[in-house]
Amino acid sequence: MLYLIGLGLGDHTDITVKGLAIIKKAKRVYLESYTSIYCDDGINELQQFYGRPVIAADREFVEQNSDQILANAGNDDVAFLVVGDPLGATTHTDLILRAREKGIEHRIIHNASIINACGCCGLQLYNFGEVVSIPLWTDTWRPTSFLDKIEANIDHGLHTLCLLDIKVKEQSIEAMMRGRQEYLPPTFMAVNVAAQQLLESIKEKSKEKATKLTADTICVALARIGSDTQKITKGSLIQMLNVDMGPPLHSLIIVGRSLHHIENEMLKLYSMP
Amino acid sequence: MLYLIGLGLGDHTDITVKGLAIIKKAKRVYLESYTSIYCDDGINELQQFYGRPVIAADREFVEQNSDQILANAGNDDVAFLVVGDPLGATTHTDLILRAREKGIEHRIIHNASIINACGCCGLQLYNFGEVVSIPLWTDTWRPTSFLDKIEANIDHGLHTLCLLDIKVKEQSIEAMMRGRQEYLPPTFMAVNVAAQQLLESIKEKSKEKATKLTADTICVALARIGSDTQKITKGSLIQMLNVDMGPPLHSLIIVGRSLHHIENEMLKLYSMP
Repeated sequence: MLYLIGLGLGDHTDITVKGLAIIKKAKRVYLESYTSIYCDDGINELQQFYGRPVIAADREFVEQNSDQILANAGNDDVAFLVVGDPLGATTHTDLILRAREKGIEHRIIHNASIINACGCCGLQLYNFGEVVSIPLWTDTWRPTSFLDKIEANIDHGLHTLCLLDIKVKEQSIEAMMRGRQEYLPPTFMAVNVAAQQLLESIKEKSKEKATKLTADTICVALARIGSDTQKITKGSLIQMLNVDMGPPLHSLIIVGRSLHHIENEMLKLYSMP
Repeated sequence: MLYLIGLGLGDHTDITVKGLAIIKKAKRVYLESYTSIYCDDGINELQQFYGRPVIAADREFVEQNSDQILANAGNDDVAFLVVGDPLGATTHTDLILRAREKGIEHRIIHNASIINACGCCGLQLYNFGEVVSIPLWTDTWRPTSFLDKIEANIDHGLHTLCLLDIKVKEQSIEAMMRGRQEYLPPTFMAVNVAAQQLLESIKEKSKEKATKLTADTICVALARIGSDTQKITKGSLIQMLNVDMGPPLHSLIIVGRSLHHIENEMLKLYSMP
């Protein structure tokens, strides 16, 4: 059986009792290490807590070695661990399909994801529209499609959860061209960078017509949700340029409507000084 | 400290290790028993698993006895348990605000919610729009606003997760008028009833103009997600009239766009025979 086990968001104790029991008896344990990271723990803390060896699986490994991951999983239990909930990213659906082709059953052990945990700031999950990913711009690649999606949500009075780019084990163009296995240091987009890209996108688009998202739109910055050091800060988009949310992971919510009384009261707890 | 602890979706072992440790040392443990239910366990199984007494808290209790729930929570730890993730429903934000008024700190221990766990069917969470609640119609009350929201999602090529009505400890109009503490048996809306209401809403609306949601729109029925008996079935909306998903809880996804290759492959696993 292939088990895809969500680890939740904070630290090693955010795994479920069910998930932990499966890890303890699994033949092999893999940790997906490219779509998200744990705030507080590395692989060593996890190994110690589980009392089991854990194999780090980056994108390359999962895409090229699925046969190895799935070896004999018809008879043995294999645990594939994912920070958050296992099915946020496409690649794991892919692993499930490869398992099913081999006649291997799968089971998902769910956990919290930023997609539901973002409700901790007091905004109602019912009032969120499409989730948006904000990719890190380069000098030559500056897509702005996220702005259109945010504006469509605002049109319908819906908040937007923006997931900020994570780059782990990415090669530089130079290394790629030279065929070298050299990797750039990991990058986690901060709220400030996301705000900067949003403000530049607005500036560009507003040359043609007025945008619904403006420098004054209320936002909520989230950092390390679920961990002991989590931080939530409410402010305008332009204020987000200077907010200090500390270490990764960050997310950003764009408020899409006038707030309910109770949403307002909750957000007051997190207002900027 | 007030702890709001998510129990996840399946059974008692879906609690996190962190949540369980808090329950074991909390002064009092309450179980919110009106916005959702566990598939597999009642309060007795929970008490046995935790080794602690658990106080059932229905809507009336939480709204009228928050002082009792929060008594001395400035010094003692109080655990308030919620199936799924703690912040799906407004009422718990309310409890947090009442705690903060009394100077009591709060902490949320997140867990899976149907809002992220619905990704288990293979549809990408990134492609979902606003979540929709479908209330159970009565003879005299037949709102159809959910149809407008589903159609707005389809307009943007987004799937819709429909949460189906739950009625627990509701009074009959007769009992209310007579001031009697008598309650109707609990009702959990089945996928079939939701499909019926959707089809009738379409029929009504299409008298004026063609609807984007039709009897042929592809849907995915979900039942008891996260439990050992979970069931996922793909079919057209009209087929959902006759699908047998078994005991509650049910949810229904309306597919809002042509599917990616990989979404299609995953959904094939759940096609109707």
